[in-house]
Amino acid sequence: MTKNPESKITAAMTKTRLEAFSDGVFAIVITLLILEIKLPEVGYDELPHALIEALPRIAAYVMSFAIIGLYWISHHRASELIVKVDGAILWLNLLLLLLVSFLPFPTSLLGRYPYEPLPILIYGANLLACNAVGFGMLSYVLHHAHLAEPGHGRERLRKQYPSYIIVNSAYLLAVLLASYAPIASYAILALTLVALIVRIVKYDP
Amino acid sequence: MTKNPESKITAAMTKTRLEAFSDGVFAIVITLLILEIKLPEVGYDELPHALIEALPRIAAYVMSFAIIGLYWISHHRASELIVKVDGAILWLNLLLLLLVSFLPFPTSLLGRYPYEPLPILIYGANLLACNAVGFGMLSYVLHHAHLAEPGHGRERLRKQYPSYIIVNSAYLLAVLLASYAPIASYAILALTLVALIVRIVKYDP
Amino acid sequence: MTKNPESKITAAMTKTRLEAFSDGVFAIVITLLILEIKLPEVGYDELPHALIEALPRIAAYVMSFAIIGLYWISHHRASELIVKVDGAILWLNLLLLLLVSFLPFPTSLLGRYPYEPLPILIYGANLLACNAVGFGMLSYVLHHAHLAEPGHGRERLRKQYPSYIIVNSAYLLAVLLASYAPIASYAILALTLVALIVRIVKYDP
Amino acid sequence: MTKNPESKITAAMTKTRLEAFSDGVFAIVITLLILEIKLPEVGYDELPHALIEALPRIAAYVMSFAIIGLYWISHHRASELIVKVDGAILWLNLLLLLLVSFLPFPTSLLGRYPYEPLPILIYGANLLACNAVGFGMLSYVLHHAHLAEPGHGRERLRKQYPSYIIVNSAYLLAVLLASYAPIASYAILALTLVALIVRIVKYDP
Repeated sequence: MTKNPESKITAAMTKTRLEAFSDGVFAIVITLLILEIKLPEVGYDELPHALIEALPRIAAYVMSFAIIGLYWISHHRASELIVKVDGAILWLNLLLLLLVSFLPFPTSLLGRYPYEPLPILIYGANLLACNAVGFGMLSYVLHHAHLAEPGHGRERLRKQYPSYIIVNSAYLLAVLLASYAPIASYAILALTLVALIVRIVKYDP
Repeated sequence: MTKNPESKITAAMTKTRLEAFSDGVFAIVITLLILEIKLPEVGYDELPHALIEALPRIAAYVMSFAIIGLYWISHHRASELIVKVDGAILWLNLLLLLLVSFLPFPTSLLGRYPYEPLPILIYGANLLACNAVGFGMLSYVLHHAHLAEPGHGRERLRKQYPSYIIVNSAYLLAVLLASYAPIASYAILALTLVALIVRIVKYDP
Repeated sequence: MTKNPESKITAAMTKTRLEAFSDGVFAIVITLLILEIKLPEVGYDELPHALIEALPRIAAYVMSFAIIGLYWISHHRASELIVKVDGAILWLNLLLLLLVSFLPFPTSLLGRYPYEPLPILIYGANLLACNAVGFGMLSYVLHHAHLAEPGHGRERLRKQYPSYIIVNSAYLLAVLLASYAPIASYAILALTLVALIVRIVKYDP
Repeated sequence: MTKNPESKITAAMTKTRLEAFSDGVFAIVITLLILEIKLPEVGYDELPHALIEALPRIAAYVMSFAIIGLYWISHHRASELIVKVDGAILWLNLLLLLLVSFLPFPTSLLGRYPYEPLPILIYGANLLACNAVGFGMLSYVLHHAHLAEPGHGRERLRKQYPSYIIVNSAYLLAVLLASYAPIASYAILALTLVALIVRIVKYDP
């Protein structure tokens, strides 16, 4: 097996397909989240109580839906500026999808044990891991000039650096505070999310 | 971070991708509904009884399948007339998908507690919320002329206003009647649905 | 609301999108089937026994996978010959998808109560209903000349008539025999399936 | 029913659609895996213990995610070199998807009964079956010259032979060792996986 034909085949995995596969995974994860909200089989009299008990799960559902939506948007933003996919990008992308697909698990923990430190810790660690891989992909593309759109594209990719650092610092702070002030952790997660949403909504092309 | 590059990147999220992602979510939600119909592990002798008990869940399944099918068709109708996607549309669309993805939850309540007011109330509220966001997207596009197809497209979008108002009034009535006459609520939901289906079937291009 | 703009919007729902949405639903249903195969939480010593108990569920999984695969292939065959989608086709297609999406439910019954008549009856009825809607779509397109590809396309569509009648007769026979000779019902379902698969495999273009 | 029209219709199932459907199934299976990781409903005090108990399930999740990712990449590599899809390829592909869709079942066994021989045996057998079908598709295309890209394409396809043989030998060894040295089986599975990932990452076009 010589190197060239192998590598050419990998190169042939076009960006379009990688995007379509990734979009599929994002769409499925975001929709599977609802399966975590299950009520116990109670009589109708106990339904109001069961619904109130389910509120933290619904809140966790909304938060994870918004976060996966954000990842989907970020994924497009970044892939817009990439012109070529190599083997490393392929696997970094699969690693990112693995971490995003994992999110329903800590989401269900968060819904089951609200305000407890451990679920916040695991949830925050999952988000940090997602962002770390996203950051890794960004750095990899910037250090392999032939993968990114020349000139303007690289500049735009580099502009995403500070936002990664700010968001990851916020997530890290939320994780560190989880054991001492879980409410503060929630507030940080929620504020970061709102800030990211507002940033996208505000800029009208 | 200057405003321009940011906004241009958001603009680059093409309509096609937004549609593909939305189609994916609609297809997944509509297919996940079947997972709500589970029989308890009973002996074969009790199967006929268990099947009869499952009938309300099957009815709820059919109703939600038809409603999500309608949302999918409406989504295409509207997106056909939009030429540009900005950040606000992106998030309004995600909010719509969140509300549509949530529908399996009230569907399962409706199947479990048929003819009880609370599930009808939650189900109707979910439909109202979906339509309210759809109405919000419509208004937003009509008030941002550069997003809609010029002339004819805007006219068509404006023509969707009355139908939103009629359908939402029906849903609101169903919700208000839930506590007093659940059967009437069901009848209103079913009739609205049939009317919407007939309207689409009848008009042959 | 005048008729024309309405109908034109419906017409704009291109065939491509209908196919993509249908493909999505087929892919999701075919993959969800595996969720029906769940082992009870037993100790390792009881695992071999639990696996043997699961064999009918695995057999039902394989059968439904093959049948949904066939529906997917048939769907493409037919849609290849359609040039225009109207409101009726849109809803007949959604009805077909509803019936296909329902299949995991009788599949799980078949796996749970093997060789019992009721599950075969429901499973067979579901298949018959799918084929009836498929037959309805075929007839509708043949009676609305502007929807089908002219000449050769119509001829090909008409050629699918006998195969629908033969397959539906087999399914009907399986359903009728379910209460008297469930094994014969299974044999008919299996043979029909094998015949349909062989027919597709044999004809090499 | 004459042969020609039938066969032409089957031929019309374009490669693009087969790929899109297959990509959909791969994306759904890879995302459904997370549903196997469920914690029992325990109090918060027992959560750390429950999480430790879930570690083998998480490990099995990661392994299967990587393996399905590999199958997806291999599927593209191979389909890149195919120019025409006939009925046999269609069904071999559906058989491959059936076997890949089945993987969540042995994955859950592996997570539930770690280090026990039976789950490794079933898991390994599932992987062997997938590869055998992949190998069968490869051979079929190579023996039907009109299906593969002429010249260079056939050469590339033939170059995939040895890698199939090496990987399948490793899986066979893992299966054979399962009853005597389950740890060795795990090591072989993990090493094969890492080798396959490294091979794809290393070759930068």
